[in-house]
Amino acid sequence: MGALRLSSLSLVRPTFSPLRRLPPLSRGCATSTHSLAKEPEADAVTAGDGHGKASASASPLLECAVTPRSVDFSKWYLNVIDKAELADYGPVSGTMVIRPYGYAIWEAIQDYLNVKFKETGHSNMYFPQLIPYSFIEKEASHVEGFSPELALVTIGGGKELDEKLVVRPTSETIVNHMFTQWIHSYRDLPLMINQWANVTRWEMRTKPFVRTLEFLWQEGHTAHATFEEAEKEALQMINVYKDFAYEQAAVPVITGRKSKVETFAGATCTYTIEAMMGDKRALQAGTSHNLGQNFSRAFKTQFMDENGERQHVWQTSWAVSTRFVGGIIMTHGDDAGLMLPPRIAPIQVVIVPIWNKSDEKTSVLEAVATVHNILKEAGIRVKVDDSDQRKPGWKFNFWEMKGVPLRLEIGPRDVTKKSVVVSRRDVPGKPGKEFGVSMEASTLVNHVKLRLEEIQAALLQRAISFRDSNIVDVSSYGELKEAIAEGKWARGPWSASDAEELKVKEETTATLRCFPFEQPEGEKKCFMTGKPAEEVAIFAKSY
Amino acid sequence: MGALRLSSLSLVRPTFSPLRRLPPLSRGCATSTHSLAKEPEADAVTAGDGHGKASASASPLLECAVTPRSVDFSKWYLNVIDKAELADYGPVSGTMVIRPYGYAIWEAIQDYLNVKFKETGHSNMYFPQLIPYSFIEKEASHVEGFSPELALVTIGGGKELDEKLVVRPTSETIVNHMFTQWIHSYRDLPLMINQWANVTRWEMRTKPFVRTLEFLWQEGHTAHATFEEAEKEALQMINVYKDFAYEQAAVPVITGRKSKVETFAGATCTYTIEAMMGDKRALQAGTSHNLGQNFSRAFKTQFMDENGERQHVWQTSWAVSTRFVGGIIMTHGDDAGLMLPPRIAPIQVVIVPIWNKSDEKTSVLEAVATVHNILKEAGIRVKVDDSDQRKPGWKFNFWEMKGVPLRLEIGPRDVTKKSVVVSRRDVPGKPGKEFGVSMEASTLVNHVKLRLEEIQAALLQRAISFRDSNIVDVSSYGELKEAIAEGKWARGPWSASDAEELKVKEETTATLRCFPFEQPEGEKKCFMTGKPAEEVAIFAKSY
Repeated sequence: MGALRLSSLSLVRPTFSPLRRLPPLSRGCATSTHSLAKEPEADAVTAGDGHGKASASASPLLECAVTPRSVDFSKWYLNVIDKAELADYGPVSGTMVIRPYGYAIWEAIQDYLNVKFKETGHSNMYFPQLIPYSFIEKEASHVEGFSPELALVTIGGGKELDEKLVVRPTSETIVNHMFTQWIHSYRDLPLMINQWANVTRWEMRTKPFVRTLEFLWQEGHTAHATFEEAEKEALQMINVYKDFAYEQAAVPVITGRKSKVETFAGATCTYTIEAMMGDKRALQAGTSHNLGQNFSRAFKTQFMDENGERQHVWQTSWAVSTRFVGGIIMTHGDDAGLMLPPRIAPIQVVIVPIWNKSDEKTSVLEAVATVHNILKEAGIRVKVDDSDQRKPGWKFNFWEMKGVPLRLEIGPRDVTKKSVVVSRRDVPGKPGKEFGVSMEASTLVNHVKLRLEEIQAALLQRAISFRDSNIVDVSSYGELKEAIAEGKWARGPWSASDAEELKVKEETTATLRCFPFEQPEGEKKCFMTGKPAEEVAIFAKSY
Repeated sequence: MGALRLSSLSLVRPTFSPLRRLPPLSRGCATSTHSLAKEPEADAVTAGDGHGKASASASPLLECAVTPRSVDFSKWYLNVIDKAELADYGPVSGTMVIRPYGYAIWEAIQDYLNVKFKETGHSNMYFPQLIPYSFIEKEASHVEGFSPELALVTIGGGKELDEKLVVRPTSETIVNHMFTQWIHSYRDLPLMINQWANVTRWEMRTKPFVRTLEFLWQEGHTAHATFEEAEKEALQMINVYKDFAYEQAAVPVITGRKSKVETFAGATCTYTIEAMMGDKRALQAGTSHNLGQNFSRAFKTQFMDENGERQHVWQTSWAVSTRFVGGIIMTHGDDAGLMLPPRIAPIQVVIVPIWNKSDEKTSVLEAVATVHNILKEAGIRVKVDDSDQRKPGWKFNFWEMKGVPLRLEIGPRDVTKKSVVVSRRDVPGKPGKEFGVSMEASTLVNHVKLRLEEIQAALLQRAISFRDSNIVDVSSYGELKEAIAEGKWARGPWSASDAEELKVKEETTATLRCFPFEQPEGEKKCFMTGKPAEEVAIFAKSY
């Protein structure tokens, strides 16, 4: 598990090869727990009352430890994904297998958004993923943006096809093809749909969750009678994403508008939520596009208005993908591994039983089962780790690495006192530990729920502080360069040209992330040109 | 909307063309309701108390009527899918767009099964859809079964690929490739996962929902230490499907084992649920395979057993797809259109307000809003059709065509009496109508819930009677031919050869659907050979 293997985890590949030649990933901690018989016994410290904790640097625990985030962020990220069993590499280079623990985070994202989409009047449906190549060519900037990334089906049922088929990279074209058949009158509008689907983009530099050849997402598509309605919808949906990010994922995104250069291929205007990762790089975590009439003109998606005139519809599209899982990992994780916000954690509470003598085991496990049932009944996602294969100290480290927000420890003394020990994932060591919390059902449930809410709030607050302390207000290009060189985000008035925006990218590798919705008051002068500027923009290096 | 257009709805195509040349589907009833201004006013009869109903054959209602099922089953099926807006054709021939009303039925299937899969210990995850071609070739019968149906990606990111990639037709190969990396010891078993995904099979004869080039499904994949465990799992999952079919979809499937000839390409044994459609043809509605060690030997998926010996794992896979939606349509529908079992109906109750004079409108709509809230609060999926565009009679026909199980009608007299009229979709005319059902919240909720349960039970009972009256017990090949010629299912003792099974298919077009789990007692003689037979088999024409 040395540096060599870790760096081989990178999916970056200079030349394309459909079959990955890398060695298979070794087992993470979880499976290792099962093969202990062939390995030295974990030497977990069970000093005193059994609630002591072995240091993560102790050699038998190493297999569970990850490269510290503070040492190498990129290695840490890949290491966490591997050890916490969030994902694995698919056989085709650049593809990813989403493992159950990672998929459960995606399911939490889906569960929340799916309800919000329906509440805001959208219906789910499903469009085919194979799109005639000619469709992609119809909207000029769309084809320019997507054609380098396409996967093409050229053979079907053993025969060469007359027309190449595109494996959808996004669905605006096929959606418009269908909308022309469903939209006739203004009474058919607005038409508001969403689909949960896989999409394929032939990316050359991939990273699990963040950028993969195939990924999962939802894509909303709507058609409206007026520009204003489409604009309202695009803004509504970016706010749904923002609310999810803040309230569920505890990711304090900055909401704003993309520059012309960074706007989606085919959109009139792109709204975005930008998140600051633990290495301060920006992650575009969701986008909502006002497509104007670009696609409706290309596909002749028209309706008869109230005056009997034919008009092109005004459209939006908006998407959040499995990339958000990567954003959650990189926002909250620390040196010990993953740290999950309680609201989206697949396991909110893990219970670790502690016993030294076998006669203690029965009573401890009985108490553990009771507590488990109490919490489960209360709707808390709880897991018991009662395996005989590992000592408590190892389990503490393991479940911390997996990012479980709260741990309950129950040993013989706790059974006697009818109490449990509660440990917070986000507060290391003694300060995060509470002894003597009553096992009585309602007391315990209230206590656990309160702690989970506190952790949820604390993670958000910590991320907000981190974000705000790493955004620098700049008033000159020199200051921007300095901020970017320090790895920070630079915020300053901007009214310069596209060419100057590209120059910044070339010289600093930072891009214009967005013109944030929240703008400072007062007059502004563009930090690049000195001319009047209406808005500040944020520049940052990004994923 | 004549015969010509209806027949053009068939997706059968003698030669392949990637772009469908058929004219776009016309609007169904739902969108038509919005374009009334340009059409003659629907002349719904509102005689007497307003609860009268226009005959479906009255000319202004024709656009809402479907080809009667009794006249032409196949046309009826395509017509229902079109008019009820369940699905539409995608631009690539053989593909299907699942529209919101059809997708909501699929969501009901997902919601039920997803819970059952988790309860039985399976975790959701996601595998990439692009599979190296060499994988498909590894299991001999698998490649034989699937290679004629493959869609191949040969170009990615603008470059010809070194190895062709298969767009997954099913995932056993890639699952095994990954399982080899996750399974090491007997302690890693059983490994039980499921994925919800799209799959692509280059079918030449397609039909919406029943057989499409791309479809949605779930595929479960498990690995076990012993044959017995795999067998138990395969049987457990076919029973989960059977329970869904009976309890939720009211589709009385027959559960059984496939013959060797009909077994899945790569399986040791295939279990199936077979449903009888309204035209008496069989539909394979779900399958569960005991894969034995076929794939684990091909992919070297091994584990160390308790004695330290390396063994190949024993596997299962099982799937239900959007085909089931087609099965529901063809089981319950009647001449008037779709008929949905309440438990999976996207809309369980539709409320139609009735008024003649505008001064009645306000009080009627107030009562309708109250009733709507009462039912919604009670968790009933309810919709109000208060559009001004159509008369009540038209709405009655429309929502019957859409298969909504229960209709509430509320007119001025009902408002005065604080009562509603309740009409069952499954009992036409007066016998299905109840007058004077109290609007009082708990009375109404109980009444509606009771009726919905009655409808659910009635649909199942009707389908069971239909099925049982169309299965003929045969004791000679002549009797089988006769039964098949009458369009029925033939059930009789069978122990003949594969060659003789294929002869039956060739001569009668009927196939051996399954050896049902429920077997008659006593000695049996094969109806083909006269030799002793251990089991009866069912033969039928199928989709």
